Amino acid sequence: MENKRNLAILGSTGSIGRQTLDIVAEYPDLFHAWLLVANTSADLLIEQARKFRPHQVIIANEDLYAKVRDALADQPVEVMAGSSAIAQAVTAPEIDTVVTAMVGYSGLEPTISAIGAGKKIALANKETLVVAGELINEMLQKSDSVLYPVDSEHGAFYQCLVGERHEDIDKLLLTASGGPFRNTPVHELDHVKASDALKHPNWSMGNKITIDSASMMNKGFEMIEARWLYNVMPADIEIVVHPQSIVHSMVQFVDGSVKAQLGLPDMRLPIRYALGLPGKRLASDCHKMTISDFAHLTFEKPDFEKFPLLTTAYRAAGEGGTAPCVMNAANEIAVAHFLRDDIRFTDIHRIIEETLAHEQHVAHPTYSDLVQSNEQARRYAEQLVSRHKI
Amino acid sequence: MENKRNLAILGSTGSIGRQTLDIVAEYPDLFHAWLLVANTSADLLIEQARKFRPHQVIIANEDLYAKVRDALADQPVEVMAGSSAIAQAVTAPEIDTVVTAMVGYSGLEPTISAIGAGKKIALANKETLVVAGELINEMLQKSDSVLYPVDSEHGAFYQCLVGERHEDIDKLLLTASGGPFRNTPVHELDHVKASDALKHPNWSMGNKITIDSASMMNKGFEMIEARWLYNVMPADIEIVVHPQSIVHSMVQFVDGSVKAQLGLPDMRLPIRYALGLPGKRLASDCHKMTISDFAHLTFEKPDFEKFPLLTTAYRAAGEGGTAPCVMNAANEIAVAHFLRDDIRFTDIHRIIEETLAHEQHVAHPTYSDLVQSNEQARRYAEQLVSRHKI
Repeated sequence: MENKRNLAILGSTGSIGRQTLDIVAEYPDLFHAWLLVANTSADLLIEQARKFRPHQVIIANEDLYAKVRDALADQPVEVMAGSSAIAQAVTAPEIDTVVTAMVGYSGLEPTISAIGAGKKIALANKETLVVAGELINEMLQKSDSVLYPVDSEHGAFYQCLVGERHEDIDKLLLTASGGPFRNTPVHELDHVKASDALKHPNWSMGNKITIDSASMMNKGFEMIEARWLYNVMPADIEIVVHPQSIVHSMVQFVDGSVKAQLGLPDMRLPIRYALGLPGKRLASDCHKMTISDFAHLTFEKPDFEKFPLLTTAYRAAGEGGTAPCVMNAANEIAVAHFLRDDIRFTDIHRIIEETLAHEQHVAHPTYSDLVQSNEQARRYAEQLVSRHKI
Repeated sequence: MENKRNLAILGSTGSIGRQTLDIVAEYPDLFHAWLLVANTSADLLIEQARKFRPHQVIIANEDLYAKVRDALADQPVEVMAGSSAIAQAVTAPEIDTVVTAMVGYSGLEPTISAIGAGKKIALANKETLVVAGELINEMLQKSDSVLYPVDSEHGAFYQCLVGERHEDIDKLLLTASGGPFRNTPVHELDHVKASDALKHPNWSMGNKITIDSASMMNKGFEMIEARWLYNVMPADIEIVVHPQSIVHSMVQFVDGSVKAQLGLPDMRLPIRYALGLPGKRLASDCHKMTISDFAHLTFEKPDFEKFPLLTTAYRAAGEGGTAPCVMNAANEIAVAHFLRDDIRFTDIHRIIEETLAHEQHVAHPTYSDLVQSNEQARRYAEQLVSRHKI
């Protein structure tokens, strides 16, 4: 039996975190959940700690520290609290792989810390590369750390590119389900509610990413992630709407050949793949795809008029520097308010565009430049929300 | 500039041969057509020799020798004739890669000769592995020779398997257009003519392979080829009907992930890929696939009742030994007669089954066992044709 690999799971109570623990449970001889980190879901964190017996748990929200500590007093587990504890905890020498499944900008700091400590990163936090792609790539070049994508799309690119030469890539074809408003007339988008968006057809995801999927901001983020993960220009990434979510993305090569990766829309597949890397697939008794699962597959161009955040994302990606960080910050604020029905769906785009117009651009930002850009953009977006409020 | 690679193109006047010469013309700095071999198409062979300036041409049909020799008397090209000349010519030290694009059993002998001489083989002759897969694999293990598949399906498997571990393969998904009779009711198949079959919807191919495609014998052959090329059991190869011929085949892995290779139905793509191996894709200005080319893709199970040769092929593959050789021989005879309207379409299956029932099985045949099995089976099939004659 080989040695178990110790995992740090940041965001263990979220959708990706819970499914990562499903994989830990599927391969008890391969993985140990050594560190579990949750933001506010204390009850589930306690339950996970009892089941998976981690070495350490951290609850980011310090108000919940006493609750978690007391509930786990009978367990051989170290309990900590606060977000600064997280960035330090991921550097522990016992940890082999850090699964970054926290939502939003908050995933950036611990990811940077884990790269500094030379960890393998199973990257599920997409904001990390959206906000700080250039900086992260520079850090990776100086580190033993390596990024393995957990997103189904980026995992698909990874699988299509295994054994291929980078210079043979012609373009990446990034598939998108099209989200819940794919067939909604553009003029109705002023009136849709968060509850309409949360009925996402294919994937079970958290609320924030479901709204990002409805606006296709999520696909813009993924385009920027792919740009940094695979070192291609934004213009060489084409978004393809594929409502069945069976083809998870494709790569076109210079000889005209295309490779695609397919699978059932189940996040445990890309998580299993990421945790098997480098070079090994984890055999599973999971339900395998049969012909009826992919009997009809359709592909179409995205509607840039209906989903103007796609254009915004390509523009921000082209500008680079702090622009994607500002776009992300404004989106986080706008989505949080849309989820509370404070603003209209179409206000998300307006808030992001106005925040970007107000950006103090830095071309090659340091980490502290990004921290500052993020804070300024969030503040500005909050002001815009008060104005747009319905 | 790197040295040009000298190609021997066996069957240069057939569909694959002509398209291989298109690729030679596309990359004049990379390839030289050093040896061209045709069966009976003397006029086209002469034209090709004038255009591509090979070192040597061979016309298999000796009756046409004087014609070819005289027509090329003003050219610096060696002209030979007869099939025994072919097996010897492919061993010339100047030759780097032998493209085996001859049709039928006749491709076997020169392929064996080229393997013995340690050549790279761009394998387009599918009967080679159908008839002699076990023998060829044994020869390859003792040789520097390597087989690169030219068939679009086997090229697709190759592309999907690059960078993957053999033990991670769960199954191969071999796609099939379904042929011209996919939507023909089974009871009408007694009455279809060769001319009906020759309107194959997707690919431009020779007559023999078009009939094999109509009966799905071709897909049975490809299943057996894949079995030997990728060392998987026939039961681990599933045939999937995909009428659009955009997905050229897929591989399912043990973790539930599937990889597919896609491209326009243009044989120059897999030829270009095979000639780029090992490890290099040849950049091309060819028309690249766009979203509208793959807007609607469908997949369904094949109809084993309508296409009983699929069952025959799986059974022969399972029996191994001389069974696939006998199946192939009977098929060559039956198809030749069907093309002359001597027999009915459904007689092809009957002739193959009866010939197989009469087989003198050899479990691990030598080359001479295969030669003998082939001859006996052809003789027996000819007798059956006289009986079935309409």
